[in-house]
Amino acid sequence: MADGFAFEVLHTDGAARAGLIRMPRGTVRTPAFMPVGTQGALKGVHWHEVRAAGADIVLGNTYHLMLRPGAERIAALGGLHRFINWPHPILTDSGGFQVMSLAELRKVDENGVIFRSHLDGAVVELTPERAIEIQRLLDADIAMQLDECLELPAQGAEIARATALSLRWAERCKRAFEGAPPGRALFGIVQGGDDARLRHESARALVDMGFDGYAIGGLAVGETQAVMLAMVDATVPHLPAQRPRYLMGVGTPEDLLAAVARGVDMFDCVLPTRNGRHGLAFTRFGAINLKNARHAGDPRPLDAESRCPAARDFSRAYLHHLVKANEALGGMLLSVVNLFYYQDLMAGMRDAIAAGNLAGFAGMTREGWARGDLPAP
Amino acid sequence: MADGFAFEVLHTDGAARAGLIRMPRGTVRTPAFMPVGTQGALKGVHWHEVRAAGADIVLGNTYHLMLRPGAERIAALGGLHRFINWPHPILTDSGGFQVMSLAELRKVDENGVIFRSHLDGAVVELTPERAIEIQRLLDADIAMQLDECLELPAQGAEIARATALSLRWAERCKRAFEGAPPGRALFGIVQGGDDARLRHESARALVDMGFDGYAIGGLAVGETQAVMLAMVDATVPHLPAQRPRYLMGVGTPEDLLAAVARGVDMFDCVLPTRNGRHGLAFTRFGAINLKNARHAGDPRPLDAESRCPAARDFSRAYLHHLVKANEALGGMLLSVVNLFYYQDLMAGMRDAIAAGNLAGFAGMTREGWARGDLPAP
Repeated sequence: MADGFAFEVLHTDGAARAGLIRMPRGTVRTPAFMPVGTQGALKGVHWHEVRAAGADIVLGNTYHLMLRPGAERIAALGGLHRFINWPHPILTDSGGFQVMSLAELRKVDENGVIFRSHLDGAVVELTPERAIEIQRLLDADIAMQLDECLELPAQGAEIARATALSLRWAERCKRAFEGAPPGRALFGIVQGGDDARLRHESARALVDMGFDGYAIGGLAVGETQAVMLAMVDATVPHLPAQRPRYLMGVGTPEDLLAAVARGVDMFDCVLPTRNGRHGLAFTRFGAINLKNARHAGDPRPLDAESRCPAARDFSRAYLHHLVKANEALGGMLLSVVNLFYYQDLMAGMRDAIAAGNLAGFAGMTREGWARGDLPAP
Repeated sequence: MADGFAFEVLHTDGAARAGLIRMPRGTVRTPAFMPVGTQGALKGVHWHEVRAAGADIVLGNTYHLMLRPGAERIAALGGLHRFINWPHPILTDSGGFQVMSLAELRKVDENGVIFRSHLDGAVVELTPERAIEIQRLLDADIAMQLDECLELPAQGAEIARATALSLRWAERCKRAFEGAPPGRALFGIVQGGDDARLRHESARALVDMGFDGYAIGGLAVGETQAVMLAMVDATVPHLPAQRPRYLMGVGTPEDLLAAVARGVDMFDCVLPTRNGRHGLAFTRFGAINLKNARHAGDPRPLDAESRCPAARDFSRAYLHHLVKANEALGGMLLSVVNLFYYQDLMAGMRDAIAAGNLAGFAGMTREGWARGDLPAP
């Protein structure tokens, strides 16, 4: 539809796809990595740096924003884009995941979840209808259904119950989303824990309802990478080719390589900024721990050939010093380095898929990581 | 001298002067405000933002850098400019002030000061000769003599003793500085506590020795603004017109207006970043506390007419949210706002001095502060 939400697959390479999600606020090149602006900000990173790194879309956390400053307040201020001064697409999660991980005294029933805010203890209710309402108030370009997300491992019966509940909530979310402005999208979330049969059932049921895109949720919650990838494999074949697929909360650079090869189009993760704050840089030489004393006298930049100014303009010795001295600038620079690296990895995969060479690109990338960091100067 | 250090007074307006300090690494427009990069970084601010704000010169702290990562290390890495990636002029203090305020178990005698590092308890000696050596290793454009800095109030005899000792250290620093590369400057520091007679004597003795510039030290250490300005008044008339005058560790915007009118050319202070981290913005409407609930729903920027993007591009509601949510971006944005405001205040004073209208500019600026913030929307 004109001025609408549209996903176009431009190239395929095995199960992998490269494409474009067109939305009124901008176009997202897929496979896409979405940096996470939890409370309306990436930790230690300016919005113009997120854009310079190459992000087409970012993620906002409904749970955090509904508690502070509040969805109605953000709506009164013109929506989340204007509030954070990011005019490009934004995906918001439904709040479900963080209710499970952060809130106190939560109680899930058919209607929704009641919990105490981790900020002030206030009792808050989140239903499928309210989750959609909040995301409409935020004016998210892509909204997510409310789901119940379990930690793994979990009991089979418990997983089945939560998966079925999430499907009923998906229907209510879809109904609540009717009448959204043109170009706004709603994604369903496949659940099913580590049970391939449940994943299959969940995917089929969601596809029958019909969503603008499909997420694979309830992973990156403590399971091994093998389980995570097995669940991706159990799900992707049951999702329609013409809709984007989003693997929530994933992951490491290796996770991204593996999941794109399996047909995933979208990712989000806090690792670039969290690891940056802790002194860890993602590079084509693998992960580099700047706390390590071997960097203390090293005049070389992290990567002289990087597109990222922070990776080129400062010595490893300086970055080491900043990290050791707990200077905020250390985490700020390394977070930017990591955001650039993640975006460059996605761009490399997009180009490789277009060239029919994703396996070659992935092999070269993994070889670079395995070779490890530059030898001492 | 060619390729040397030169100060040129371009305009005077009463006691105030506007001029240029030319150094091999760049020219500093005076009156100048020097942001403080304590441990080789401003807290929460990128170096390119310091430059964009308009800083011609920054300050590095010898005490911090000698302890971590060490002056010899920085020298091996090509000096402080290359280490922090700031190719423009840098002034370093002598370490004396922070030995007094931060170090443990310090012992001052004729030779120098012995103290325990606040980082690891290591015993470190700082003599006038070592202070100069460290600043040469850092390759500071402007080095400061070692002095003994007391907290005020202090006993008269104690002030007299420290002032006399600082003068003997000044001579030793001057001798140690001989043979510095062309264009590097050494400033003496006028001491004397809150005693105008001692200030006069200290200034005269330093001028007799002959320095490239003169600092007024030992202030902004607990005394009132009236005492601070009285000491400036007691000192400036005894300093040569053709040398820059630097009031160390000062101050608030009001302090800067008052001291420039009294003939001071250079300042340094951590207030722009420290207050920014604490949610306080300096603006032409006065200081604005973003923690205040009145900003929570305010869609207006801090100052739509500011030259600073951070003051224009984000709503007060967003800044309030970031500060309340302890998001690092809040302090980062407000620190940049404050650095721009300080530099714009200096630029405004320079222009006003050139136009012979400093009193008018100062009056208008104070009126703006007194009117206070914009009325509620």
